[in-house]
Amino acid sequence: MINEGYKALLKGKSIIRELSEYATERGKEIGYENVFDYSLGNPSVPCAPEFTDELVKLLKEEDPVYVHGYSPSLGITSVRERVAESLNKRFNMNYKTEHIFMTSGAAGALAHALRCVTKPGDEVLTFAPFFPEYYQYVNQTGANLKIVSASTKDFQINFDAFEEKLSENVAAVLINTPNNPSGAVYSTETIKTLADILYKKQKEYGHDIFIISDEPYREILFDGVDAPYVSAYYDNSLSCYSFSKSLSLPGERIGYIAVNPKCRDAEILSVMFGQISRGIGHNCPASSIQLAVSKVLDKTSDLSVYETNMNIIYDELVKLNFEVVKPGGTFYIFPKALEDDANAFCMKAKKYDLILVPSDNFGCPGYFRMAYCIDTEKVLRSLPVLEKFVKEEYGVTP
Amino acid sequence: MINEGYKALLKGKSIIRELSEYATERGKEIGYENVFDYSLGNPSVPCAPEFTDELVKLLKEEDPVYVHGYSPSLGITSVRERVAESLNKRFNMNYKTEHIFMTSGAAGALAHALRCVTKPGDEVLTFAPFFPEYYQYVNQTGANLKIVSASTKDFQINFDAFEEKLSENVAAVLINTPNNPSGAVYSTETIKTLADILYKKQKEYGHDIFIISDEPYREILFDGVDAPYVSAYYDNSLSCYSFSKSLSLPGERIGYIAVNPKCRDAEILSVMFGQISRGIGHNCPASSIQLAVSKVLDKTSDLSVYETNMNIIYDELVKLNFEVVKPGGTFYIFPKALEDDANAFCMKAKKYDLILVPSDNFGCPGYFRMAYCIDTEKVLRSLPVLEKFVKEEYGVTP
Repeated sequence: MINEGYKALLKGKSIIRELSEYATERGKEIGYENVFDYSLGNPSVPCAPEFTDELVKLLKEEDPVYVHGYSPSLGITSVRERVAESLNKRFNMNYKTEHIFMTSGAAGALAHALRCVTKPGDEVLTFAPFFPEYYQYVNQTGANLKIVSASTKDFQINFDAFEEKLSENVAAVLINTPNNPSGAVYSTETIKTLADILYKKQKEYGHDIFIISDEPYREILFDGVDAPYVSAYYDNSLSCYSFSKSLSLPGERIGYIAVNPKCRDAEILSVMFGQISRGIGHNCPASSIQLAVSKVLDKTSDLSVYETNMNIIYDELVKLNFEVVKPGGTFYIFPKALEDDANAFCMKAKKYDLILVPSDNFGCPGYFRMAYCIDTEKVLRSLPVLEKFVKEEYGVTP
Repeated sequence: MINEGYKALLKGKSIIRELSEYATERGKEIGYENVFDYSLGNPSVPCAPEFTDELVKLLKEEDPVYVHGYSPSLGITSVRERVAESLNKRFNMNYKTEHIFMTSGAAGALAHALRCVTKPGDEVLTFAPFFPEYYQYVNQTGANLKIVSASTKDFQINFDAFEEKLSENVAAVLINTPNNPSGAVYSTETIKTLADILYKKQKEYGHDIFIISDEPYREILFDGVDAPYVSAYYDNSLSCYSFSKSLSLPGERIGYIAVNPKCRDAEILSVMFGQISRGIGHNCPASSIQLAVSKVLDKTSDLSVYETNMNIIYDELVKLNFEVVKPGGTFYIFPKALEDDANAFCMKAKKYDLILVPSDNFGCPGYFRMAYCIDTEKVLRSLPVLEKFVKEEYGVTP
């Protein structure tokens, strides 16, 4: 008997994917180089060459039974050990091998973290604007995602709205910094205030509240930005990481959960993740990819293009009088649309082959997202198109 | 708040894993070459060299943004297309690209298939002896696994016991042929009878009953064995495959679900799998592994060692008067223990550094499993040890 619940999900198609598919189709008509496709957050730079070298070396020099053999269900031990060492060195933490659980990217990490610290019926809070897939990640566990409205002046946290939404039913708070879609990076003050409130509420409610920190953009930070390591400020925290963006390996599905050594039951959480895996058929990232990534943990792809693009787009938006917060990281920017209805705004842009994503699904209506993980040359060519669009549709001139 | 349900699972450690860990520890004392470790079903032969060649070629010659880029959520289209073509050619089926969904091995395939065709509270039937992880795969979806007792004379299906267990609550039947742990391969007659009963019961109950066919050992077949392709005999069937055993890539976590084109809603099931993925954080096997495997779909590792080992062990067991069914495939054999309590039997064997797995967790007490995916040389050296064990403990001589 086909599961009707999953069948019903088929109706809710992702707007991002729809726009991306439109851009691809339109590209077939006019040449993809003429479609200014800011829809998809897909890294545009090649993976770190050291990764390729290490993987080729493994394939050519090591015993294939080892390279392609079963990974223990928590990840290959030597890989977990290296991840712990790298995090300790970079963020002055105290992770041991037992605190690291290897996952299929950040999605796999969130799937395990959420199941581990919630039960069906619990609430998970997140802050607008947020990645729309959070609804699927949370609600398919049986917990309920609740949204705290945005602080649109800076895309830090709206703490008044947060305290209003907090209740005894809240088991976890899901944060994402650097943030998709706003590009904002939570400041040390923001993280400290969040931690203070949660410590107070844990005591008041008499139960743990976990921070689940979704950190795939951790390595894409722009000049001079204050970017605290979340787990350093709150004990009950689980860092969910992916190498998709830092090493440009999105298809290889590799990441991890780092369990704060000070969190409740820290020594058994990874083993619990392993149990969760048995039911969701996860069974670790590919063994050869684990081994190769473990050799290049402190490398990244050349990520500089993202900051270059950001500065070009930000300056242009400011020139055109858009209301926009300057991103501190990621490859996203999140300006206010020129009319209240962001969908209408983006539909009009589409006529100019300018593909912008309306913000409604990010929980923050009236804005739009540009994913500028594209060639700088194309960004530059898109500027006159943007100018033409806002002039013709809204009478805006620089 | 830590999920108490998953925490409780920590108590139930796998007997197979415990024995395997014991064998490793014991190996540190006396040399692993002196431990006759028949515990773990881990392929002992290297991967097909063509796979390594294709992967190295991709890494060296293709654009890394393509090789490591996001896979569409149902799998890379060209890979799905090739899988469909290969299955059509080999099994005279009519799969299209849309019927193939790429997964993280058979575990990933089962996780999606089970969620798609059951809802919490439904029953899933499987046949003893069965892979103990089925409990996790099924019960963590909210459905309930029910066991049909074994047909110990041949390890085909006990149809009387099956018909007794069938009820309106049964949404799916989970089968595994070639079978872990028995090594039996269901005959055409068995599959036809199973299909006939299910067609009749579908009509009687007025709802679909799916066959979920777990087929990781499909390529490990011994001389002269009748090995029907399950989906050719029943419309509502989902074939769950893994390349772990055929290509010796267990750690690379790659497999697929092939949806029978004639099954209910065949055209939307893969899209439903994609929706299920969003909640369980699956997001496809690694892109580079998908691409490389798609080039070697009709290759296998050199699997001949398994049949060589099977014949040696089977002849020895017969010589020692064990009650044993000759395997038709896999790298397992499942003889009857020499006392009713298989645990006691295996504990005694352990004293001789002979690591055998008792059958209780396979739903068929009184037997034991030997996984003979080890070097033939070691199999031969284990024979005098086996003889010594049964002579000293049970007075059995050839």
